[in-house]
Amino acid sequence: MTPSAATPAYRRLSVEERRTQLLNAALTLFAHRTPEDVSLDDVAEAAGVSRPLVYRYFPGGKQQLYEAALRSAAEELRHCFDEPRDGPLLPRLARALDRYLTFVDEHDTGFSALLQGGSVVETSRTTAIVDGVRRAAAEHILSHLDVTDPGRHLRMTVRMWITAVEAASLIWLDEGKQPPRDDLRDWLVEQFEATLAVTAARDPQTAALAQRLTADE
Amino acid sequence: MTPSAATPAYRRLSVEERRTQLLNAALTLFAHRTPEDVSLDDVAEAAGVSRPLVYRYFPGGKQQLYEAALRSAAEELRHCFDEPRDGPLLPRLARALDRYLTFVDEHDTGFSALLQGGSVVETSRTTAIVDGVRRAAAEHILSHLDVTDPGRHLRMTVRMWITAVEAASLIWLDEGKQPPRDDLRDWLVEQFEATLAVTAARDPQTAALAQRLTADE
Repeated sequence: MTPSAATPAYRRLSVEERRTQLLNAALTLFAHRTPEDVSLDDVAEAAGVSRPLVYRYFPGGKQQLYEAALRSAAEELRHCFDEPRDGPLLPRLARALDRYLTFVDEHDTGFSALLQGGSVVETSRTTAIVDGVRRAAAEHILSHLDVTDPGRHLRMTVRMWITAVEAASLIWLDEGKQPPRDDLRDWLVEQFEATLAVTAARDPQTAALAQRLTADE
Repeated sequence: MTPSAATPAYRRLSVEERRTQLLNAALTLFAHRTPEDVSLDDVAEAAGVSRPLVYRYFPGGKQQLYEAALRSAAEELRHCFDEPRDGPLLPRLARALDRYLTFVDEHDTGFSALLQGGSVVETSRTTAIVDGVRRAAAEHILSHLDVTDPGRHLRMTVRMWITAVEAASLIWLDEGKQPPRDDLRDWLVEQFEATLAVTAARDPQTAALAQRLTADE
């Protein structure tokens, strides 16, 4: 153990501070390794504490730490969607996407492992957390579009695009983060516009919206 | 047990016939219920055999039966993609999609449970089976497009669309199979065309392809 890693153990932390410290150590580890490759010893070492101390705060062990880290990451991801409700719509979408892709960039391995499924730490709870983020993203988009009662076509279009963005993120990580992030962001915004235009031909609500987007530009 | 359900037990079946019979019973049950709602007793009753007999063929119990049923369903799904390589491309895609949506229709509950994740029977093996079908779908599309060395943009576009189709299928099931299947099929084909057109503006390979598709019509 390096002296610097051990330092935190010498300070008396409050329960809340200690919990946050352990969680942050776990978050960093889970972001850049698969859950299979993270042990409680790794978390203890990264936080500069003993393994029993980790267990005192997280008696459920790795599974509990993983879920806590995931909830914390999900919270961070939701903040990516925060965007003032003024100015043209597509640049708002582009800014939110930019923050989302930065998040993906910074949590690469963990993000892939989580979304590729079949992980040992995957449970109905972790699935619910991920689904919650997806739902939040769809609600954000619909609320920015100023649609209070979105019909089936529009909801389906937004959710299809969100899933396509997820797929694109995973492929992007697989491909060594190519094309460059800005290109990917603009391409995805263009896909959003195109997919809305297709739906507009089938659905009056989406048609009205597509018209507003065009007027916006 | 009804007499008709019990009938198969009175005939001596070969090992292979018996295995197929049990698997078919399992497939039907897993298609219309969540894995959580299917017990080995249900499979035994549906096949008109005893529970120990099911265990003799599938010593791994429900998990093994589920995986065997999933492999069999995946095989069936791959056949949906079989399509002669002549005639315009978009109608070929429409026909394959039509068979895929019929499959989704006929395996509704099981399809949702499988793709929504977090199920008790989900393992790295079930995930690999599902991923294999996704990869097969992408390869089929690229081979119909006559692209031997697809670049990053084109691969990404095809995989994004496949994921969007999956998302659309799940929402379609959630929404009581609305809009009608034919509408959904045509809408998804239009989305494919639109998403290729967007990528065409960024990638010469896709641009050449989009031109061929337009000439096709």
